[in-house]
Amino acid sequence: MSKISRNELTALTQSAFVALGLTPEDASDVADILVMAEMFGLTTHGVSRVESYGERLLVKGINPRPSITVEKCAPSLFKVDGDNAVGPLVGMRCLNVAMKAAKEQGVSVVLARNSNHFGPISPYSLLAAEQGFATIIGSNATTTIAPWGGSDARLGNSPLGFGVPNPKGQHFLLDMAMSVVARAKIRNAFKAGQTIPDTWATDAKGVPTTSPKDALDGFLLPIGGHKGYGIALWVDMLAGLLSGAAYLTHVKSWLDEPDLPQNLGHFFILINTQMLGNTEWLAQKMNDFAAILHESAPSDPTKPVIVPGEIELNKMHDYLQNGIPIADDLLLLLQNFSKGQFVK
Amino acid sequence: MSKISRNELTALTQSAFVALGLTPEDASDVADILVMAEMFGLTTHGVSRVESYGERLLVKGINPRPSITVEKCAPSLFKVDGDNAVGPLVGMRCLNVAMKAAKEQGVSVVLARNSNHFGPISPYSLLAAEQGFATIIGSNATTTIAPWGGSDARLGNSPLGFGVPNPKGQHFLLDMAMSVVARAKIRNAFKAGQTIPDTWATDAKGVPTTSPKDALDGFLLPIGGHKGYGIALWVDMLAGLLSGAAYLTHVKSWLDEPDLPQNLGHFFILINTQMLGNTEWLAQKMNDFAAILHESAPSDPTKPVIVPGEIELNKMHDYLQNGIPIADDLLLLLQNFSKGQFVK
Repeated sequence: MSKISRNELTALTQSAFVALGLTPEDASDVADILVMAEMFGLTTHGVSRVESYGERLLVKGINPRPSITVEKCAPSLFKVDGDNAVGPLVGMRCLNVAMKAAKEQGVSVVLARNSNHFGPISPYSLLAAEQGFATIIGSNATTTIAPWGGSDARLGNSPLGFGVPNPKGQHFLLDMAMSVVARAKIRNAFKAGQTIPDTWATDAKGVPTTSPKDALDGFLLPIGGHKGYGIALWVDMLAGLLSGAAYLTHVKSWLDEPDLPQNLGHFFILINTQMLGNTEWLAQKMNDFAAILHESAPSDPTKPVIVPGEIELNKMHDYLQNGIPIADDLLLLLQNFSKGQFVK
Repeated sequence: MSKISRNELTALTQSAFVALGLTPEDASDVADILVMAEMFGLTTHGVSRVESYGERLLVKGINPRPSITVEKCAPSLFKVDGDNAVGPLVGMRCLNVAMKAAKEQGVSVVLARNSNHFGPISPYSLLAAEQGFATIIGSNATTTIAPWGGSDARLGNSPLGFGVPNPKGQHFLLDMAMSVVARAKIRNAFKAGQTIPDTWATDAKGVPTTSPKDALDGFLLPIGGHKGYGIALWVDMLAGLLSGAAYLTHVKSWLDEPDLPQNLGHFFILINTQMLGNTEWLAQKMNDFAAILHESAPSDPTKPVIVPGEIELNKMHDYLQNGIPIADDLLLLLQNFSKGQFVK
């Protein structure tokens, strides 16, 4: 494990994407999002994605030199065609369109099609919050969840995120998938020989199970049962259906078909909080909001109540001062990629 | 149990609110929402609310003759001051402002303060869907949920709803509270002498419990643990904090202090789907979306997979043809209220 500065890691990640065929400007946007993910501690969605994105760029499953187009449907409503670009590049383009429109209109919605995995959501929410915008951002994904009461995977875990700016304190940042737990947690229980709660997953027939083995053959369960199922569908209706992207089972799996476009979709909803009151007003309210929550005595004294975003923002603060920890093999991979050496 | 037509029930409910001091126009708006709730089968949020809203109108906790004002912050962003009106009246005013703006701007956001309980969300989503608008609508509420890991009630169950129109089929309608279950379900388990899953509620110290008795002394748990906690906070940040309403523990309880304004807040986010494509395109996509879900074989053969909104819309269709079932004592109450007889 090495520690590396934000600038160094960004430059290295950018170089890797340039070697994979992107322009330096486009590679810079992609690197910004992945490095921010790394600083938030979201390592599964960080610079390690250079490898999986890279594999698809190399087999032409992702377009390294896209012509991303923006269509203005109305003063506050836009459609973006990502031309099968690397996901975070489409995401950044959408965010910029959305911020420009919301600055004048107060609100904006941008719907993207022909995209790919766009990294975690909280980096986009942070960039928007720093400019005073509240956000609702979502994406569809490869199918991993069965319809509520169904028996085969027909919807994705529909990542969904929210941000609300605090001009003089910590922004509210929430970034979640719609499944109760990630598949990795079930795999860990299986390795440890433990049972799992019957709210985590179903077996292959769609019946809730406490066996991690059966669960690994089955499907993840959404949070709150039919409630999370409904939210996941709604995310896909905006990100997939209304955007003109693929949705539900129309989404191609990047593992099974890495060389085909996925046609993923995203949505960005922005609200300009600067048109609702001045920064003092907003900061005072946001700090009061957080204080009310923090003042609830924890049921476990070692675990104080937190507000979503605190863990990520505290980690970012630490890493900006002390460097970002990167596993040595990942660092080597980035260095090799940046030299055009794509074999492991 | 009697059956009564939509028009009759609306007229009766309207008369009750006129007797409680509202103008006929305002009473009509409130009646429309509550009768729609009744037609959706949401009886806890239907015309029985005449009684609880009425109690507060009679002790001047709710203002029967409000001056609701609308402030345009930007072309797509509005604030509404409900002047402590009956909630569904504020809700209808917000919806109309939002639809007018989204018709031209493509998107709109309306934030309301100084309001009260505004009924269920799906009637608003249905009215918007019938005009081609997708919706995200939320409200804050009296505190019933502890912060995740906390030990006292500091947030509400933050009702949240979504709608996506289908111009030639069934609209997508989702209307949910953020708790795993309603308190009534815990009460039923207690009466039946059953234990409850430890994901439903905590005891008075904030520790998850399987005892319905301890749960009734404690707090409801949000869906997905920290995930639902986060969504509930976000709803309150938009509906309460950004709107200028009360939020978290600042919200007054209408049970403990029925004569005081609650200063509840709501938000309405609308997207004009007619600017994204024509009705044939949208209908084809929405029908395909629903078909993909319906085609998943049910894990329990007696329970086919459904799409959110189906139960409510099918019930409405039935009730419109065959009349709305109303309990006799509720019908008597409405009749008495409409004559100005407010004692039980």
